[in-house]
Amino acid sequence: MTSEMSPTGEKPLLLTPGPLTTAHATRKAMLQDFGARDSVFIEMTRSIRERLLILAGATETHTCVPLQGSGTFAVEAMLGTLVPRVGSLVLVLVNGAYGRRMVEILSRLDRSYLVYETEETMPPIPAYIEHLLTHQKDITHVAMVHCETTTGILNPVEQISHIVARHGRIFLLDSISAFGALPLDLQTIPFTALAASAGKCLEGVPGLAFVLCKRTALQKSAGQAHAISLDLEAQWTAMEKNGQWRFTPPTHVVAALSTALKQFYTAGGQPARLARYTANCRILIEGMKALGFVPLLPAALQSPIIVTFHIHTSHNFIFEKFYNHMRLHGYVLYAGKLARTESFRVGCIGAIEPQDIACMIAKAYDVLQEMNVLPE
Amino acid sequence: MTSEMSPTGEKPLLLTPGPLTTAHATRKAMLQDFGARDSVFIEMTRSIRERLLILAGATETHTCVPLQGSGTFAVEAMLGTLVPRVGSLVLVLVNGAYGRRMVEILSRLDRSYLVYETEETMPPIPAYIEHLLTHQKDITHVAMVHCETTTGILNPVEQISHIVARHGRIFLLDSISAFGALPLDLQTIPFTALAASAGKCLEGVPGLAFVLCKRTALQKSAGQAHAISLDLEAQWTAMEKNGQWRFTPPTHVVAALSTALKQFYTAGGQPARLARYTANCRILIEGMKALGFVPLLPAALQSPIIVTFHIHTSHNFIFEKFYNHMRLHGYVLYAGKLARTESFRVGCIGAIEPQDIACMIAKAYDVLQEMNVLPE
Repeated sequence: MTSEMSPTGEKPLLLTPGPLTTAHATRKAMLQDFGARDSVFIEMTRSIRERLLILAGATETHTCVPLQGSGTFAVEAMLGTLVPRVGSLVLVLVNGAYGRRMVEILSRLDRSYLVYETEETMPPIPAYIEHLLTHQKDITHVAMVHCETTTGILNPVEQISHIVARHGRIFLLDSISAFGALPLDLQTIPFTALAASAGKCLEGVPGLAFVLCKRTALQKSAGQAHAISLDLEAQWTAMEKNGQWRFTPPTHVVAALSTALKQFYTAGGQPARLARYTANCRILIEGMKALGFVPLLPAALQSPIIVTFHIHTSHNFIFEKFYNHMRLHGYVLYAGKLARTESFRVGCIGAIEPQDIACMIAKAYDVLQEMNVLPE
Repeated sequence: MTSEMSPTGEKPLLLTPGPLTTAHATRKAMLQDFGARDSVFIEMTRSIRERLLILAGATETHTCVPLQGSGTFAVEAMLGTLVPRVGSLVLVLVNGAYGRRMVEILSRLDRSYLVYETEETMPPIPAYIEHLLTHQKDITHVAMVHCETTTGILNPVEQISHIVARHGRIFLLDSISAFGALPLDLQTIPFTALAASAGKCLEGVPGLAFVLCKRTALQKSAGQAHAISLDLEAQWTAMEKNGQWRFTPPTHVVAALSTALKQFYTAGGQPARLARYTANCRILIEGMKALGFVPLLPAALQSPIIVTFHIHTSHNFIFEKFYNHMRLHGYVLYAGKLARTESFRVGCIGAIEPQDIACMIAKAYDVLQEMNVLPE
């Protein structure tokens, strides 16, 4: 295979946890300027918020608060707005960089927290959380990451959310890398708030995040946030009043998300997206195994979002060289963030098809031969 | 004139303080996806930061810290990062919504401040600031807005910045609506930090802001910011290390700014931009006067950024109706934010030419006739 074009015709192909490869139609939506206080844009914002709530089955009790910035902005806004400055204790489940980031945020915000950390390749144990909530009565919130892109591990969100609900605590979920692909419905995962982003599995472009949040929780949070820009309650209140954003919205990014959501539903919604990503992931893992790469995680813990591979055991393998060669051929891989193991990552999400992954594997085969990692 | 197309061919034409009408080439730059950790994007970020510093003549002593989000995110990041939690007192000059917003931010951040407020049609008096700084030794910072888009008033930044410098205090400037159009050089306006945005006079798209900041001031600010996402020191330190953003950047918005900056320099830089906006503003004011609209500000205080007009004195004039008719013809005007006077605003900035304004005036004439505000 020598063609430099992928089956979907887009290059470079971003095989990363984001920014992702997006559809041409999504990017084309950014060719128009919108006035932020104009009725067309107000309706676009309203419709996006509604569609995101419907997606999570949360229209009855929750609202969708969009926020300028990256996913971390939304996570910080969620924690800052919903965790009271006094009288609260957040139990944070950590098994990667994004769990640690929630701890860093709470620490900077001077909110009390407790960390339950497991190995990066180990999900938290629901029974232990049950134990903690039973015996530590001062825990008010539980915060966790849905899918840790540090490794690609899928955490047992459903089980844990029900334990938290049964104990009457507040459940805060960082679902940034999972929302839109993994099943996430208020009925199966009772959440008080959930942070997600336009530029991940919804396949919009980066620059816009959002929090789905229980309205009664927001109502109690006026003036509580640590930052004006990250105040979800104020953002919500302003938006309810006249449909407008408090501060200049990223209009083009909003338009891209609107178009991306249309495609999302047309293609069959969350089940179809999960099926495509799962197919991408399966072809990726099988193909990479055939090239001698070993996945970090056992299949049972592997999310179809991103896969971490150990560095190739051949002495001739140098990741930077492999990365650069693949980059030249139009495939952007991702360096690892793991604390302990030498590894790299390949994303399965974005506007990419199983054939794209197959082409990437074929190209990786050529490159590994050139590097004398595999025999000619 | 009945054509619905403006001379520059873009509709709707946004005659607002932003989001603005942008050039087609700028929007076209968003048709490509970029990996955030890829060398192409790293170089793009570096080059933008460098060009923005050069524009302000600040390469020797300052650095440029880009930030996800709107201009307000950058202003809040500037105040939160650079104003110490204890031992500081910020003198805030207020004559409009953006000055008040700085007060709101400092209040939420629990930083001490003092307000010198003037009428929305009155600039602050430099001699009084001289007096305040002489007698109030505990004032550590002075914060002000360059051009208040509330009215369009141009504040005496140059004079005040020199007074602040002579008194050895720290000068923080919200130059969001002015940067790129009004002369702003470190030699003439000595600033410690300045917040600006991609989507105003630089004519990028919204979703990206930046702070030009003295490096020694940032070095002293580690851990001081109230929010992780808005921590300019951490953003800077991370970026200096490997050229990458700490959190997912709005890659498409960054690409648009890069292209917008190329056009900015090709067209003649800040002097050319100021000349075009000044021509827009002159035609706007003359044309609107001929239609019976009275500008709020005297010419001496009027910036070439946005113009506030009193509501028409005719009893037949209803702003909403005028707005909607103009909107149908492709011209998006802007409702006022003034505390006292009934008014509306028309922007002069963005990728618009004097001919566009002339066409808008011609259309306004037709609309006002239809509304029986002007005789047939």
